[in-house]
Amino acid sequence: MSKKITPRSKDFSKWYNDIIMHADLAENSGVRGCMVIKPYGFAIWEEMKSVLDKMFKETGHVNAYFPLFIPKSFFSKEASHVDGFAKECAVVTHYRLKNSDSGDIIVDDQAKLEEELIVRPTSETIIWDTYRKWIKSYRDLPLLINQWANVVRWEMRTRLFLRTSEFLWQEGHTAHEHSEEAIEETEKILYIYKRFIQDTLAVPVIEGLKTDSEKFAGAIETYCVEALMQDGKALQAGTSHFLGQNFAKAFDVKFTNKKGELEHVWASSWGVSTRLIGALVMTHSDDHGLVLPPKLAPYQVVLIPIYHSNEEYDAIVQIMKTIAVKLRKSNIRVKEDYRNTYKPGWKFSEYEMKGVPIRIAMGPRDLENKSVELVRRDNLIKETVSLDNFEERILNMLDGIQDNLFKKATIFQEANTFVVDDIDDFKQKIKQGGFVVAHWDGTIETEQKIKKLTKATIRCIPLNFKIEHGRCILTGKKSNRRVVFAKSY
Amino acid sequence: MSKKITPRSKDFSKWYNDIIMHADLAENSGVRGCMVIKPYGFAIWEEMKSVLDKMFKETGHVNAYFPLFIPKSFFSKEASHVDGFAKECAVVTHYRLKNSDSGDIIVDDQAKLEEELIVRPTSETIIWDTYRKWIKSYRDLPLLINQWANVVRWEMRTRLFLRTSEFLWQEGHTAHEHSEEAIEETEKILYIYKRFIQDTLAVPVIEGLKTDSEKFAGAIETYCVEALMQDGKALQAGTSHFLGQNFAKAFDVKFTNKKGELEHVWASSWGVSTRLIGALVMTHSDDHGLVLPPKLAPYQVVLIPIYHSNEEYDAIVQIMKTIAVKLRKSNIRVKEDYRNTYKPGWKFSEYEMKGVPIRIAMGPRDLENKSVELVRRDNLIKETVSLDNFEERILNMLDGIQDNLFKKATIFQEANTFVVDDIDDFKQKIKQGGFVVAHWDGTIETEQKIKKLTKATIRCIPLNFKIEHGRCILTGKKSNRRVVFAKSY
Repeated sequence: MSKKITPRSKDFSKWYNDIIMHADLAENSGVRGCMVIKPYGFAIWEEMKSVLDKMFKETGHVNAYFPLFIPKSFFSKEASHVDGFAKECAVVTHYRLKNSDSGDIIVDDQAKLEEELIVRPTSETIIWDTYRKWIKSYRDLPLLINQWANVVRWEMRTRLFLRTSEFLWQEGHTAHEHSEEAIEETEKILYIYKRFIQDTLAVPVIEGLKTDSEKFAGAIETYCVEALMQDGKALQAGTSHFLGQNFAKAFDVKFTNKKGELEHVWASSWGVSTRLIGALVMTHSDDHGLVLPPKLAPYQVVLIPIYHSNEEYDAIVQIMKTIAVKLRKSNIRVKEDYRNTYKPGWKFSEYEMKGVPIRIAMGPRDLENKSVELVRRDNLIKETVSLDNFEERILNMLDGIQDNLFKKATIFQEANTFVVDDIDDFKQKIKQGGFVVAHWDGTIETEQKIKKLTKATIRCIPLNFKIEHGRCILTGKKSNRRVVFAKSY
Repeated sequence: MSKKITPRSKDFSKWYNDIIMHADLAENSGVRGCMVIKPYGFAIWEEMKSVLDKMFKETGHVNAYFPLFIPKSFFSKEASHVDGFAKECAVVTHYRLKNSDSGDIIVDDQAKLEEELIVRPTSETIIWDTYRKWIKSYRDLPLLINQWANVVRWEMRTRLFLRTSEFLWQEGHTAHEHSEEAIEETEKILYIYKRFIQDTLAVPVIEGLKTDSEKFAGAIETYCVEALMQDGKALQAGTSHFLGQNFAKAFDVKFTNKKGELEHVWASSWGVSTRLIGALVMTHSDDHGLVLPPKLAPYQVVLIPIYHSNEEYDAIVQIMKTIAVKLRKSNIRVKEDYRNTYKPGWKFSEYEMKGVPIRIAMGPRDLENKSVELVRRDNLIKETVSLDNFEERILNMLDGIQDNLFKKATIFQEANTFVVDDIDDFKQKIKQGGFVVAHWDGTIETEQKIKKLTKATIRCIPLNFKIEHGRCILTGKKSNRRVVFAKSY
C-alpha cells in the first residue's frame, strides 16, 4: 500500500490533512470537533512541552492545576471577557444519568445543577477567584503560575490542530505589584515564545501588538507572535496579554502595598497550544510528507537494513545495533526498524512521510566498505559515508538540518513580506498571499473596511518597526507607522 | 504567625486537612467538589508523573490524547460500564451562553446539543471507539497506549486528593491478540504500580484481586494494590483491569488473527491518580506536618542561615551558596532561603511543615568550625557535621531517609495486619483498624453482611497468599484461602 499526498500546489488544505493523517499525527474523533492526538503527534507535543516548561521554570514560574469547570457567575464577572467567550462555551447542566422507563440511558432531570458550569475556555476567572485568597500583601507578589491543561471552545468548523473544540495548551497567569512589572512579564513571555518557536520549531515569527478589535477579551494589550505558512496565510502562534487590573477588579483582588495602602493587583496571562503542531506542519513539510526539525522529532534518526539473504540481514543488523547504541550515547533519538515483514522501499517512504530527519540505510556493499547511506529529510540529499567519527557527523547533520529549516522558512517569509503603498497593489498582494506591510489610520472602521474588501486582518502592529510617516492605504489619512496585514488561519 | 496542626490522635481527618492546607498542597475551589492543586502539591505530582511515565515508556508504552467528551450513546454501549458510572456523570447539554432580556448571562436554549456529552469519568468507551479504526490485523497488536488526563466523577462528599469530582490521573488502554497476553499486561502493570508506590512513595502495598462486587464496571478481573493508612484504614492505591473482550464486543473491534480468522480484541486498562498524594500524606506525615520521601520532595534540602549581624549574614550566605552549587551538581534539589524578612525559627517550622527531608542550618559557631547543623525530617534527629565529603553525606542521608520511611511504614503495616478466625475478634480488630486477614465463603451475600455488620469491605483476594483450608468467618462455610478485610477510604 502506498500513501498518497495531494500536492501543495493543487490543494493546500487537502495536502495539510493528508500529512496529518498519513504521518499519524491526529484524527477526528467520534465527538464533533474533538480530535484524537495519536502517539506520534503526541510525542511531538511532549517534546514541545518539555522545552517550554524548562524555559518557564528557568524564569521563576511554577506549575499548578485549577478546576476544569467554571461557575457561570464567575465567568460573567468580567464583562468583555464573557462577551468574548459566551458564544463558544460547553455548558454542564446535569450531574447524573438514569434509565428511562423504556430502558434507555437518559439525563436525570432530578440532577440539574443549581448553577450551570462552563467547561473552561481559558482560566482567568477561576484563577483570579483563587488569587483573592492567596494575595494579601506585596510580600505575596509576584505570583508566577502556569498550568498545562485542556480547554474547550465550541467550534462549528474545525481543522485538526488549527481549530478544534477541545485543545491542549499552557496558560500562564501572573500577579504583580506594579503595572510596569506586569508589562515587563508580558513582554518577557512574548520573547520566550519567540525564542522557543524560532529555535525549537524552526519557525520564524514577527512580534507585535494586536489592534483593539483583535485583542483578548479582557486584556488591555495583547502581544502576539505571527508566523507565515507556505500558502501565504498568517498563523497566530502565541499570545501574551497585559490584563491591567481588570480581573483583579472583577474578583476584588487587593493587596497592601509597601506604603500600607490597599491596591488592586496587576496581571498578565499568556498561552500557546497544540495549534503549534499545525504551524510546524504548514511551515516545513513538503509533497513527500512531514518534515520535522530535529529538536522536536520523536526519532531523529532511523536505521533500515537492506539485504537479500539471512546472512546479510544478520551481519547488517548486528552493525546497526552497535551504531544505535553509540548514537543513543550521544543523546540522539534513534528508531531501529529491522522488521522483515516490510520491504526497505516501503520503510523509506514511511519514515519520509513521518519526517524523520535522517535515514541511515546499510546494504551488502556498505557492509563491505564499512559505510552507510545517509538521506537528509530536509533536502532529500543522499550520500554514502564511512563509519569513522560517525556520531559527530550525525550530530552536526542534525544541527545543520535544524538551521537549514529555519533559514529556508526565513527566506520564504522575507520573500513573501511586501511593503505596499498603493491599494490595488495591496489587494493583489493580499490575494497572492504573504505579510503585507502598509500604513493604517488607526481606526476600527478602516480595519473593518479592509477586512471586508480583502479578507485581510491586521496581524499585528510590529514592536520593532520604526516610526515612519505615511498615509493610510485605504483612507489616505495620516499614519505614523506601518502594520502587518494578511489573511490568516 | 504559627500554623497549628490538629494531632493525629485527636482527629485524624482534621489532621489530614490541616497538613494539606498548611503544607500548601491543595485547597477547595469555588467549584463544588473540585480542588486547586497548589504549586507545592503539583510539584509532587510532577515528580510522580515523571517517574511513572519513564516506567511505562521503558515497557513499550506510548502516550496519546483522547477527547474529554464522550457521546452518551458510546457511553451506554457496555452495559455494566454505564451502570457503574451513570450516577456520577457531568453532562454537557448546551454549547452557548447568551444575554437574557434583563441583561443576565444565561444558557442559550437554541444551542442545545442533539446528543448530550459526558465529561469522561474514564475513557474506555471513546478509546475503543477509536481502536476500531486502528486495529485490523494481528500486525496492529499489541497496542500499548497511556494518557495523562483529567477526569470527572461527580461526588457529593469530597475530600482533598482522596475523593474529588475532578482529579488527574493516567489511564492505560491496551489491546492484545490473546487473552493470556492481556492478562500478562494487566499483571505487569500491577507490579509496575507496586514497585513505583513502594520504591518512590515509600508506601508498602499488598496486591490482589477485587471481588466481583468491587470490580471495575466492565472488567472481567480487577487487580489492585492496597495500602494501609496511619488510622488503620485501607486505601486503594492503583488498579489494573483485565477487560476480556467486553469493550471490543461493545465497539465491534475485530482483527484478523494469524489463521486468517476474524476475532474480537482482548483488552486491559489501568490507572493511578492524584489520590496517591493523599496516600503519601496519610502514610508518612506526623504532628509536625508533612513528611516527604526524598524521591518525591520538590526540595530535598533547605539551607537556612542563622546570624545576628550583617557581617555574619554575608559570610554564612556566601558559604551556603557554594554548598548549594555543589549539592546541585550531585543532582540534589536544593532550596536556599536567605530572606531576612523571616526569622530562622519561623523558617524551621515552615520547612518542617512542608516535609523537606533535610534542613541545613549554619550559625556563627558553625562558621568558625566549618560545620553545619543537619536535621532529618523523618526522625527529627539533629547533628552537627563538618563540610568534608559533604555531598556524599547528604546523598547517603537522603537514601537513608527514603529507606527508613519505607521501613517504618512496613513495620506499621505488619503490626496492623491481623490473622483472625473468630467473629468477635474480627469485629474488634476491624473497629481498631488494620488489615484483617480472614476466611470468606466466596459469596456476595456474606461479603455484604460483613460490610453491614462492621463497615469492612474485602480490600483484595491476595495474589501471593497460599492455599489454606478454613471456615468462613461469618457463615462457617468452607473456604480455601484468606482474604483481606478493612475499612477503607
